[in-house]
Amino acid sequence: MRLTILFGGASFEHEISIVSAITLKEKLSGFDLTFVFCDQDHKFYLINPSKMRANTFSKGEHKKMPELHLSLGSFVQKGLFGATEHKGVVLNLIHGADGEDGTIAALLDFFSIDYIGPRVDASVFSYDKRYTKWLCDARKIKSVKYEILSAKEQKDITIPYPIIIKPARLGSSIGVSIVKEESELDYALDTAFEFDNALLVEPFLTGVKEYNLAGYMADGKMHYSIVEEPQKNEFLDFEKKYMDFSRSEQVLKADIDIKLENKLRANFEKIYKNLFEGALIRCDFFVVDGEVYLNEINPIPGSMANYLFEDFKASVTSLSNSLPHAKRVKVSYDYIHSISSAKGK
Amino acid sequence: MRLTILFGGASFEHEISIVSAITLKEKLSGFDLTFVFCDQDHKFYLINPSKMRANTFSKGEHKKMPELHLSLGSFVQKGLFGATEHKGVVLNLIHGADGEDGTIAALLDFFSIDYIGPRVDASVFSYDKRYTKWLCDARKIKSVKYEILSAKEQKDITIPYPIIIKPARLGSSIGVSIVKEESELDYALDTAFEFDNALLVEPFLTGVKEYNLAGYMADGKMHYSIVEEPQKNEFLDFEKKYMDFSRSEQVLKADIDIKLENKLRANFEKIYKNLFEGALIRCDFFVVDGEVYLNEINPIPGSMANYLFEDFKASVTSLSNSLPHAKRVKVSYDYIHSISSAKGK
Repeated sequence: MRLTILFGGASFEHEISIVSAITLKEKLSGFDLTFVFCDQDHKFYLINPSKMRANTFSKGEHKKMPELHLSLGSFVQKGLFGATEHKGVVLNLIHGADGEDGTIAALLDFFSIDYIGPRVDASVFSYDKRYTKWLCDARKIKSVKYEILSAKEQKDITIPYPIIIKPARLGSSIGVSIVKEESELDYALDTAFEFDNALLVEPFLTGVKEYNLAGYMADGKMHYSIVEEPQKNEFLDFEKKYMDFSRSEQVLKADIDIKLENKLRANFEKIYKNLFEGALIRCDFFVVDGEVYLNEINPIPGSMANYLFEDFKASVTSLSNSLPHAKRVKVSYDYIHSISSAKGK
Repeated sequence: MRLTILFGGASFEHEISIVSAITLKEKLSGFDLTFVFCDQDHKFYLINPSKMRANTFSKGEHKKMPELHLSLGSFVQKGLFGATEHKGVVLNLIHGADGEDGTIAALLDFFSIDYIGPRVDASVFSYDKRYTKWLCDARKIKSVKYEILSAKEQKDITIPYPIIIKPARLGSSIGVSIVKEESELDYALDTAFEFDNALLVEPFLTGVKEYNLAGYMADGKMHYSIVEEPQKNEFLDFEKKYMDFSRSEQVLKADIDIKLENKLRANFEKIYKNLFEGALIRCDFFVVDGEVYLNEINPIPGSMANYLFEDFKASVTSLSNSLPHAKRVKVSYDYIHSISSAKGK
């Protein structure tokens, strides 16, 4: 099947997106893949598959490759003798800003290009952790209690130590710190405020079980990956996550009973339905005393969480065939016509 | 001052946007105005100001005018002898789909064009009335109780008649019906489902006071319009709203005491702050027994609610000078470099 992998983006997770794309190139071998890179200046380039190496981008070699422009229904490459259209379903693989904040979704919708990835509204609710909390409240999904800190206003934290501090709008553990006592607080706040002017403070839960589950909707029903119990050394920092993004071997199923698996799936569906259609997402859950809490939604998980699926190629294919299409309203000029004809009388 | 008015859009409110733009052409006389029309196929055209008449668009005459393309920092007009850039602050005046759903916001952010209008997240919370309810709950703003109906699932309405039925994602009263008894229900549902697959049902409140208030943030503080008590004949249907969009005379201040005015302002600020920065919005409130309820947020009100401001030109100018700029992350290749150098050892 034909698929355009869109990666890069002006984001703190730019490098992670490159690693994800390189991983999927291998994982989706046999697919007819096109690689489109979005650089830091928001220019698009068509990358020769043989140049899909990290160095291509860090050395700026992509700038010698053909530039692409968004056009109705395709990315277009302009040449001396006319334009070449690169059509087909896009896999939005831009992690973080641009890709997960709704920007790329809106662009692709505007130009009527079908894509795998969260739509604009789903992006807003998953990219900003404050809005994820609102989503949980509205849909009666349990999540960890929290407080908001703003760079503009001084406010005391009332949650007892240990706490975890997260920038509101970043993934991949960037800017995240565990704070065990007050002496560590200032440094953690400085670090997090470097990335965002709004932070979330949550209790740092110890002794909880953590489970990851990915899934998507196709043919009108939910499809789930296996449940993984991620390795934990306190939490995955950026470097470990970075390696995590290049995983391509299927992982072992977590040793949980069917009751808990169903509970995780039920929570996943509550989050997904009527919001994330068109996307393959991964939800990270905590389980405390048998209760499931949402920790985080990854609307574009690293390397699409391919390692959680038994047949990743079949999953991508079935999702591609079930994508929502951006509806374009048919404009009418009824009022203008009626006013004009009234004037003409 | 220089301002690009962007109007049209593939939306049920396409015609209303044209009327808004024509109204602002008059209202902002003296400004250096550029008119950019987005047609139903999502093509942009530079409209000669002398052709800013409704007929230009209904007759398709805009297609003979220069086409524009989005480019870094400007709309670009390509010609035989190179390209002309149309720079400057954009006033997003596309009502409904495209303009208010976050699409245009994302496009302008992506191309680093400054604009007056709601950002992507603010758009999501005001365009979809379900998410406006979530915003109200999260920020402790009172709003009318509601139920959701979906085209996919049959569900009984438990709110007693009279009720009001609204498509979740449309403004300007399109598809809205007041249902006084069960016999009127099917027709109202059919009408509303023509426009959206999700509907809101609310009690139709009689005998409530309705007040509209517009405002924006500039120079770090809120600026408010006068409070208007809109004329009511049950509710403004599409045709009346349509005329409403061409208003350009300042209206009379509602006869309310300072205490209520402050209460309306306090509610407005709760909605606006940390979400709507960069936009001039109008909030429509109900007042019942001295309590203020949010009815609706208009993130791009008809003709920018110019008639509510004492000095509309000064308001637009001060807002233009206080716009948030889309932050573009500076990409780094630290990890790729460190991996490469480790390999080189």
